[in-house]
Amino acid sequence: MSYGRDAGGERTVSRGGGGLATALRGLVEQHDVTWIANAMTDEDRLVAGEQQRGTILLAQDPLVYDRFYNVAANPMLWFIQHMLWNLAFTPDFDHDAWTSYASVNGKMAQAVIDELDRDPDALVLFQDYHLYLAPAIVRRERPDVLMSHFVHIPWPETDAWSVLPPEIRRDVFAGLLANDVVGFHTDRWRRNFLRGCVDALGASVDGDVVSHDGRRTHVTSHPIGIDPDEFDALATGDDVLECEREIVASRPELLVLRVDRTDPSKNIVRGFRAFGLMLERHPELRGRVRMLVLLDPSRQDIPEYADYVAAVEREARALGDSVDLRVDDDFARSVAAYKQYDVLLVNAVFDGLNLVSKEAPYVNTRDGVLVLSENAGSHEELSEWALSVNPFDVSEQADAIYAGLTMDPAEKRRRLEGIRSHVREHDLAEWGAAQLADLDRVRSPS
Amino acid sequence: MSYGRDAGGERTVSRGGGGLATALRGLVEQHDVTWIANAMTDEDRLVAGEQQRGTILLAQDPLVYDRFYNVAANPMLWFIQHMLWNLAFTPDFDHDAWTSYASVNGKMAQAVIDELDRDPDALVLFQDYHLYLAPAIVRRERPDVLMSHFVHIPWPETDAWSVLPPEIRRDVFAGLLANDVVGFHTDRWRRNFLRGCVDALGASVDGDVVSHDGRRTHVTSHPIGIDPDEFDALATGDDVLECEREIVASRPELLVLRVDRTDPSKNIVRGFRAFGLMLERHPELRGRVRMLVLLDPSRQDIPEYADYVAAVEREARALGDSVDLRVDDDFARSVAAYKQYDVLLVNAVFDGLNLVSKEAPYVNTRDGVLVLSENAGSHEELSEWALSVNPFDVSEQADAIYAGLTMDPAEKRRRLEGIRSHVREHDLAEWGAAQLADLDRVRSPS
Repeated sequence: MSYGRDAGGERTVSRGGGGLATALRGLVEQHDVTWIANAMTDEDRLVAGEQQRGTILLAQDPLVYDRFYNVAANPMLWFIQHMLWNLAFTPDFDHDAWTSYASVNGKMAQAVIDELDRDPDALVLFQDYHLYLAPAIVRRERPDVLMSHFVHIPWPETDAWSVLPPEIRRDVFAGLLANDVVGFHTDRWRRNFLRGCVDALGASVDGDVVSHDGRRTHVTSHPIGIDPDEFDALATGDDVLECEREIVASRPELLVLRVDRTDPSKNIVRGFRAFGLMLERHPELRGRVRMLVLLDPSRQDIPEYADYVAAVEREARALGDSVDLRVDDDFARSVAAYKQYDVLLVNAVFDGLNLVSKEAPYVNTRDGVLVLSENAGSHEELSEWALSVNPFDVSEQADAIYAGLTMDPAEKRRRLEGIRSHVREHDLAEWGAAQLADLDRVRSPS
Repeated sequence: MSYGRDAGGERTVSRGGGGLATALRGLVEQHDVTWIANAMTDEDRLVAGEQQRGTILLAQDPLVYDRFYNVAANPMLWFIQHMLWNLAFTPDFDHDAWTSYASVNGKMAQAVIDELDRDPDALVLFQDYHLYLAPAIVRRERPDVLMSHFVHIPWPETDAWSVLPPEIRRDVFAGLLANDVVGFHTDRWRRNFLRGCVDALGASVDGDVVSHDGRRTHVTSHPIGIDPDEFDALATGDDVLECEREIVASRPELLVLRVDRTDPSKNIVRGFRAFGLMLERHPELRGRVRMLVLLDPSRQDIPEYADYVAAVEREARALGDSVDLRVDDDFARSVAAYKQYDVLLVNAVFDGLNLVSKEAPYVNTRDGVLVLSENAGSHEELSEWALSVNPFDVSEQADAIYAGLTMDPAEKRRRLEGIRSHVREHDLAEWGAAQLADLDRVRSPS
């Protein structure tokens, strides 16, 4: 989440990119938690000065923060972990940006250590790819603290990590192994991490436990879920209902939907090509089907991201009236569209989990069909109810969209019900509890 | 190798791209071998009609051959295996090209079966990434024939293979496992293949042996070498000596050399950036050092390759007089330059082995220093005598070039002698013998 001001000067809190901030906020609300984060906006920096109990926002030097966030974390680590680099040309490894990454990690580690001075029994839960180096710094100062780290994005295999110089990739693995628990959304990323520990550090692996540098780290996988109550409430909220009336009034018979951040990992360009190819193959559907594409603008300070939005807009224009593309941050419209789709396209190149593939079916009212990339983390859970596609096979995606649009109604219902009951059962609370249970298991080995 | 006609109408045989064709010709000359290959040039197709003992050239339908060679094999498989795809945008998997790949493999398999009818005891040795599907076809018809397959390019990890649709990547792995032996240049590629067999097929792996579909396949690694006698002769040949005199007459005090095909895997663009950065950091070397870059034009029918040459030429122009770039096929000049370099830059993004890193030091006369990518296959053998660099770290490459240019003479000599004696000892004959020994081991298990 981040803080801003509305037109009347009142402080606002925005949901933050992706579902992660919301997911974590749910966890935070249910426990006695101190949230430590970097101040990102000017308003964040003001809040950082005020420092209320429960949230600590660290003010960072803006230049250092920019290199940390807009070079080292994105695109560098994000592109490595989603296999998005065009390696013949990019990147040139940026040592200055990595120094900034290390500096922000150091400041974050110090804030954790300060908090442990106030509350020595606190558990420390690191989140995601911005903080790979912090755990080792905390560990040096506090050998006995219980720490876990959840990585929300894919963990690629050893060769992909060669974009980092050898000593830096060792630091990344060693930083994570300073935790007692490292968690991923899927077995696939977990397995890649375990193999990487062997390859990068020569660590030894026994089942789920990595031994390195005299310590043991448990490596687990727990796919994150959604908060069903939140989405029940959202789906019937006034702003969503208003958006939904608009969509219903203007929609053709059939609606193909995608909802994403404008991120190259999401495979938006190939999604348009697949929809266009589907129309070529089935001209009888022209006029009867529209593709609604709702994109939350993301990381537009990063050239690769700005270029990607331009490519997305070019591809959409080529499809003319059959596509309705909106690039803005409008979550109410997204939820309204979730309710109204006939086919939901999630064709990510790689994706740590993909919450849209859980949120949207949960509130859908039309027995809509999920077309799901085999490289999305949620594919491990949802594949039996989805139409699986390879993200690089546009032809297959075109056929899957058509199959979804023309599927037998009973089969559509069976699939949607399968996803909904899975999502209801394996919810955000289960994921949060699993984090804490992992740490309990380390504290009191059976 | 391929056949052409010279200006006088005489048939010519050219060396072929890369060192592989030469390396294999050496093996062929020493044994009673039938070489089966695809006809690539018009002259090849004439030779195919003549069919002499010892060489069988298969005429392929030109359109099918084009899709096989210029789409499915290159860039598709080559880019997957060297991790060169820009996955947010390319490729769209091309089913028609894969059908052509399967068709050429089928024709090749039939030629092998026909040859086995003539000589039922023959061993079958498949080479490289053009023929992943042929072994399974031969195996179905000839369950007891001894077959090996040597893959000369990197074998990437499981996630990189996801560019192929699931059933096709299974066909690739299953095709290779129809052999009795699968060989790679390095333990790194061998290990990736073994893990991939588990991931793609659920095969079981015990040491070097993969069990799948009721068969056992030995997976080995043998780095290819050069023929020292050939290079002794080349280095003192008239055409090389003439080229060398030219280089000596025009060279400045210090020469940085690279010799490559114009392939995006070779990392030529970053090499120029590294040389430029070295000059920025050490302006005292301006005028005293030149970068000589000899590039053999490669696969120019493929857009990605043509674009790459353009990018290489742009980058070279930016460096002005300090660079001498030649894009032509002139092996005599390459060998002359091998003898004259002070620093040899081999900074490949990924490379199966890289024969230049063996050929050039073997004939070098100036105690030249090898700067070698950690992602080149030869790094497993040569790293102790080379300056290792990460291919994405231009800054480190700049520093390594400088370190090579200014290294203590005794240290330079020690390193070059180390490479030379390794290359002399582990030569092409050893590699060829290892192929045959692997098959003998399968025939008569101890």
